[in-house]
Amino acid sequence: MTRPPLVTLTTDFGAGSGYPAQVKAVLLSALPEARIVDVSHEVPAFDLLAGALLLEACVPWFPREAVHLAVVDPGVGTVRRALCVVDPEGRRLVGPDNGLLTPFLGPGAAVRELVTGPLLPAPRSATFHGRDLFAPAAAHLARGGAPEALGPELRDPVRLPWPAAVRAGDELRGEALRADGFGNLVTSIRVADLTGPVTAAFAGGRPARFVRTFGEGAPGELLALVGSGGRVELAVREGSAAAALGATRGIPVRLLLGPPGGAC
Amino acid sequence: MTRPPLVTLTTDFGAGSGYPAQVKAVLLSALPEARIVDVSHEVPAFDLLAGALLLEACVPWFPREAVHLAVVDPGVGTVRRALCVVDPEGRRLVGPDNGLLTPFLGPGAAVRELVTGPLLPAPRSATFHGRDLFAPAAAHLARGGAPEALGPELRDPVRLPWPAAVRAGDELRGEALRADGFGNLVTSIRVADLTGPVTAAFAGGRPARFVRTFGEGAPGELLALVGSGGRVELAVREGSAAAALGATRGIPVRLLLGPPGGAC
Amino acid sequence: MTRPPLVTLTTDFGAGSGYPAQVKAVLLSALPEARIVDVSHEVPAFDLLAGALLLEACVPWFPREAVHLAVVDPGVGTVRRALCVVDPEGRRLVGPDNGLLTPFLGPGAAVRELVTGPLLPAPRSATFHGRDLFAPAAAHLARGGAPEALGPELRDPVRLPWPAAVRAGDELRGEALRADGFGNLVTSIRVADLTGPVTAAFAGGRPARFVRTFGEGAPGELLALVGSGGRVELAVREGSAAAALGATRGIPVRLLLGPPGGAC
Repeated sequence: MTRPPLVTLTTDFGAGSGYPAQVKAVLLSALPEARIVDVSHEVPAFDLLAGALLLEACVPWFPREAVHLAVVDPGVGTVRRALCVVDPEGRRLVGPDNGLLTPFLGPGAAVRELVTGPLLPAPRSATFHGRDLFAPAAAHLARGGAPEALGPELRDPVRLPWPAAVRAGDELRGEALRADGFGNLVTSIRVADLTGPVTAAFAGGRPARFVRTFGEGAPGELLALVGSGGRVELAVREGSAAAALGATRGIPVRLLLGPPGGAC
Repeated sequence: MTRPPLVTLTTDFGAGSGYPAQVKAVLLSALPEARIVDVSHEVPAFDLLAGALLLEACVPWFPREAVHLAVVDPGVGTVRRALCVVDPEGRRLVGPDNGLLTPFLGPGAAVRELVTGPLLPAPRSATFHGRDLFAPAAAHLARGGAPEALGPELRDPVRLPWPAAVRAGDELRGEALRADGFGNLVTSIRVADLTGPVTAAFAGGRPARFVRTFGEGAPGELLALVGSGGRVELAVREGSAAAALGATRGIPVRLLLGPPGGAC
Repeated sequence: MTRPPLVTLTTDFGAGSGYPAQVKAVLLSALPEARIVDVSHEVPAFDLLAGALLLEACVPWFPREAVHLAVVDPGVGTVRRALCVVDPEGRRLVGPDNGLLTPFLGPGAAVRELVTGPLLPAPRSATFHGRDLFAPAAAHLARGGAPEALGPELRDPVRLPWPAAVRAGDELRGEALRADGFGNLVTSIRVADLTGPVTAAFAGGRPARFVRTFGEGAPGELLALVGSGGRVELAVREGSAAAALGATRGIPVRLLLGPPGGAC
């Protein structure tokens, strides 16, 4: 049995705006058998970092043969370029060349610029490349077409400055990056940064208790934990850390680490 | 023709949060042919009763072979158990053992506890059992796997106290339970409770006119009617009963009934 | 290879309300192979014009064999009729006879009234014809059933007054009609109305710069441009024209046109 082609969509269009539906219409016109999964159409408008973090969290869970169409695109219709990326794991993505695809642009990624031609007609609008350019490109890839046919290699794709935790002695410093739907705050500290047990945690100057899961918290208590995406998160049991801390991005987070292998 | 496997999702994750997409990614990795239908990802966060009522309203409309994955789960990662339920109609559901599946836990339901093993690897996170535990369990069932393989029988699943109407003479007393997207309020009074014609209706102390459909109301008029889910609802034509009554739950509702078969 | 049946949904139900899921459940019970695409469930409640404009923008992008189910239906359960429309392009739609389908009711459209019978059982509710009437009708059409079987011809479907631009000398006058998810305002001026280059644009009395794409705007600057749906739109780069102008509908828009073929 061959697997049906699979395309995911990640945008800031708004699910009910009709724009995702037009993208799907173009995909299904080209590939009637395609499976289409919405990752999100609620990326905060024009927020490239939030979109990139969401892609980082979701894309790896999909089967390798999926094609990922991502559009957060304040520069649509201007000179910004359009990309097809094949990352070292073989994952294929299309989207604007504005940093949105940064998590997949590490060493070993093969990047091409989408150019109009027989495969990609000139976009019918100056403002909706998701429908007019990226959907035909994604359909081409999803039906097994070669990335090479979409355009020439591109060596200098735009990358976002990527927020990373900073180590200073036994202290790990990071920041909140985005809120999920519950108000949990995803931070720049990754599980790989935790070289030893966390002995203390602070967020926005407030102490946070480091726990294994939300349910261990007391009502209203600020928690820190390793989230399901492999990043340290701030949370409040049955509440919103974003509301408790009054922001969704930029809140400083500090973890104190014990020696590797030490008891917490 | 065999029907493709069908899985529905009901959660409080938020449709655009990326969490439903990760659940779908796991389902489609295991079952590329699966059809996935979102019942809702907008259950109010941690609101077990709202989730249970939504399942009660929606699940019966799906074909019997569908598998229903439901997650509203404040206790994820703690000792709360995980369930597979086969109700007396043969409908199959998976979800946390916290009362969310109450409408399907009546007499005759076969309940099993999900236990990790060859079929269900230990969850990769302490906070996202929708992706790490319930999705693999749902995929097993959707491909025709036996519930027995998922874990041992469980005789004491957690049930929510289930709100029911109370009869006192010719009066039926209930309460508003949840609001739909229009602000219509679904109540604890079921159509089966209406043993005679409704002669008068009151909600929150205000009179409501009992009608057959929204369109019979005057602008702003508070209405009561039998809703599409078989429960009495409060409504305002082209308006919101929730806004008019200032709440979505707990508003007392009173119906006066005439004799069975009597004219209204 | 035959294309799987394709049904689109456009409603004001709210995506997470459970109502779209019940419609899908009925469709999939009748047609397990159907592909279902959500155009929107976030049409503003009871807003027929917004729904009609969204259908106008989205339906033409779908393959011709798609069936479009649309429900914005303040008069459900009253005497308003129910329609099946086949437009001159062969596109098939079902929905209430209240003007929602106006863009497809031009000359050459074949309109039928849905009547209950063997194909369409009497609706099980007075308030949810999307599930009980339109879904069975859409399933009938999507599996290749004849529109003629659904009911008799209907010669006087309800049409909305359709907002159009007015030409006065070298001036084109229109108005904002609806906002998209970014706050861009779609207007009643269509690209076909632009008989010459736009030399000046005004919205709500404020000057707007006429550009080709959002990215040409300065921060905060009010822009006018031809949108992806073939209508003139008002926009603010990385901002919301709806917020800037304080409304989503009724704002007067004025364009001054140069002579046909003249330079801008």
